[in-house]
Amino acid sequence: EDGDTERVQRFCDEELAPVEIAHVIESSPTKVRELLWQYLDEEQQGDVLPHLNDELQQAYLSQMSAHEILETTQDLDSDDLADMLQQMEPGVSSQVLELMPPSTRAEVEGLLAYPEDTAGGLMNTDVITVRADVTLETVLRYLRRREIPDHLDALWVVNRNFGYVGKLPIVKLLTHSPDTTVREIMDSDIEGIKASTHEDKVAQIFERHDLVSAPVVNDHGILLGRITVDDVLDVIRESADHAVMSMAGLDEDEDTFAPIVKSSRNRAVWLGINMITAFVAAAVMSQFEASIAQIVALAVLSPVVASMGGIAGSQTLTLMIRGMATGHINRDNLVWLIGRELGVGALNGLLWAGVIATITIIWYSDVYLAAVIAAAIIINLLTAVLAGASLPFLLKSVKIDPALSGSVILTTITDVVGFLTFLGLATFFLL
Amino acid sequence: EDGDTERVQRFCDEELAPVEIAHVIESSPTKVRELLWQYLDEEQQGDVLPHLNDELQQAYLSQMSAHEILETTQDLDSDDLADMLQQMEPGVSSQVLELMPPSTRAEVEGLLAYPEDTAGGLMNTDVITVRADVTLETVLRYLRRREIPDHLDALWVVNRNFGYVGKLPIVKLLTHSPDTTVREIMDSDIEGIKASTHEDKVAQIFERHDLVSAPVVNDHGILLGRITVDDVLDVIRESADHAVMSMAGLDEDEDTFAPIVKSSRNRAVWLGINMITAFVAAAVMSQFEASIAQIVALAVLSPVVASMGGIAGSQTLTLMIRGMATGHINRDNLVWLIGRELGVGALNGLLWAGVIATITIIWYSDVYLAAVIAAAIIINLLTAVLAGASLPFLLKSVKIDPALSGSVILTTITDVVGFLTFLGLATFFLL
Repeated sequence: EDGDTERVQRFCDEELAPVEIAHVIESSPTKVRELLWQYLDEEQQGDVLPHLNDELQQAYLSQMSAHEILETTQDLDSDDLADMLQQMEPGVSSQVLELMPPSTRAEVEGLLAYPEDTAGGLMNTDVITVRADVTLETVLRYLRRREIPDHLDALWVVNRNFGYVGKLPIVKLLTHSPDTTVREIMDSDIEGIKASTHEDKVAQIFERHDLVSAPVVNDHGILLGRITVDDVLDVIRESADHAVMSMAGLDEDEDTFAPIVKSSRNRAVWLGINMITAFVAAAVMSQFEASIAQIVALAVLSPVVASMGGIAGSQTLTLMIRGMATGHINRDNLVWLIGRELGVGALNGLLWAGVIATITIIWYSDVYLAAVIAAAIIINLLTAVLAGASLPFLLKSVKIDPALSGSVILTTITDVVGFLTFLGLATFFLL
Repeated sequence: EDGDTERVQRFCDEELAPVEIAHVIESSPTKVRELLWQYLDEEQQGDVLPHLNDELQQAYLSQMSAHEILETTQDLDSDDLADMLQQMEPGVSSQVLELMPPSTRAEVEGLLAYPEDTAGGLMNTDVITVRADVTLETVLRYLRRREIPDHLDALWVVNRNFGYVGKLPIVKLLTHSPDTTVREIMDSDIEGIKASTHEDKVAQIFERHDLVSAPVVNDHGILLGRITVDDVLDVIRESADHAVMSMAGLDEDEDTFAPIVKSSRNRAVWLGINMITAFVAAAVMSQFEASIAQIVALAVLSPVVASMGGIAGSQTLTLMIRGMATGHINRDNLVWLIGRELGVGALNGLLWAGVIATITIIWYSDVYLAAVIAAAIIINLLTAVLAGASLPFLLKSVKIDPALSGSVILTTITDVVGFLTFLGLATFFLL
């Protein structure tokens, strides 16, 4: 409790930027968090809100009336506003929309039409457009008259129908003579990103071409807005978080500082799923209770067979999921890759079958037991790499996220196959 | 083989950007890759090289003489050149350095002085600096005379000793009158990043403040260079890859398309480590062979106890590693967090102990066995969350990467504790 008071004290003493305040709030246990939030005035709350994670945004927004929300968020960019509206109860968000000035409302409603994880959901509408036939002097005069959005690195060149034509980096405005026309110096090889493009694809485009901003167009090539690199950074960070967290069955918004009961509930689901798979494996093993009663070493060595398969499979699975995310793996090279993985599985299967057989001989002085465990290791490793290589594609084709459910399905397979081959072969050959 | 010819054919027909060529090469099996690489002329090879992953860069550079390397890479930025030199054999890289023009050589050698994973290693030196007392007109005149680097979003304001003073966004050059002085409109609240700052910290600074570029300074505040957001994107992507890949014991540079023998070797290490931990757990279990021979159900249920601990522990571990990466977890809130995790472990321990005990009663009609497994589950889940919460800090304090070795140590602990408590309690109370 002393630490808490100290934390609040330090918080009040410092002059922090909204993003830093958000970070402190996120890093605090629930009780302290409430104190800190109450301490902020309305304007500060509005500045801090878009920097908080979705879960906290939702929590704080749900405590406010539509009027308060509007008051708090009036200075935000249209894309931040749209994101936030998507966090609210439908009833509240439509109330907030009704209270907005008509122009803002139209802008925000336009953005709400696009799913959050597409280029349309990422874009903001504060673009500056110019026509190709004007001179730089006209452009410069125009720029001096209007408000300049953040991260302005380029103007967008459009035709009379607002169709996207090209990009005019503002650096070029500085280095070319004022009587040059826009057409002469614009980059026309930078394509517009379709509003329906998935955010992961958008991130790949930014990464490959080192972009700072990119134009977003509709199916007819009409300019809708722009995506800036700061939003792309968030996409990459979030998809990375998702990959890591989902491997442990956690939601990427799982709040590190949530209260005990809430956290327990979030994690119980995954523990439950894993319990079921553990009992499936146990049920397989229990079919061989008579064999185990005769040769207890089978019980001791079974988990070794199962775990080697689990590791080999998860290596392949991880490589496949990552290769699909980076776009390196596609239908063209999938067959080659599965063949490669089977080769790797066979080589490592032979190697570790040999090592484990040797250990078994030394431990139990039983050559037949060693032969059985060696065979089981090879079969399980081959099964594991085959499952690891094909699962991501199978799951994706039925719209299941391989990062989330791939590993649990995989280890169920390797446990079952491991127990079944080892105990089955042992029952057949050793008894 | 047909697919290969087709791929090469398509490759030759299209007009691809260097970054896209690199992507196609990375996505090809070794044999096709060689064909594609040979097909490129020297200049193209030079353009493509910096976009390839480290492993391929190394492979191709090792085939070239120092002269060829210099020829191929002469148009690259100094930071790309420095990165590439770090991939070469020391003998070759010093030869290449000797062949460089003195000015380039000095620049590159300066960059080589900083470790690759620091701000100094990320920065490039193509900065444009101005003095605070000149007018924008002077700045504009100066800009028209010189070559403009990529991603120029700001000029850096320095004093007469090249000490960093502030940032001058180039947008401001457009919107302010030419007789304004730099001092009047520069941003002096953007701090220089120390060259020794770790790249993860640099990424956090860029993310929090939505930067496109940032100045890098030495300990005395002298401007050394700048970091651009495209390099920060790479840092975030690489650290995300590292987090995901290292959980499966893979190197983030593990080449998805490497030949079988090479891949097998890379993965064998991790399989070996896991085999050792599996045998440690097996050795623990074998201490109770006499008990298992009497009650075979113990063999069947042991893996369930071990695996529930493994899952609970890896959830906590993942959350801690991610919280440390985002900077949300620090010494201030660590004690609170460990307490929270113990609470979560206790609640889920009670829940799943109850469920598993019920299943055990239904399956084996043995209340005492059910009581023993319930107790073992609770003990193992508490151990698991405690280990998961403290391991990352313990490992980090001895300079071991928790993402790489955390999970293998954790599952060894949960396997050993799971077997020990379940089989130990069973031996004590049931026999």
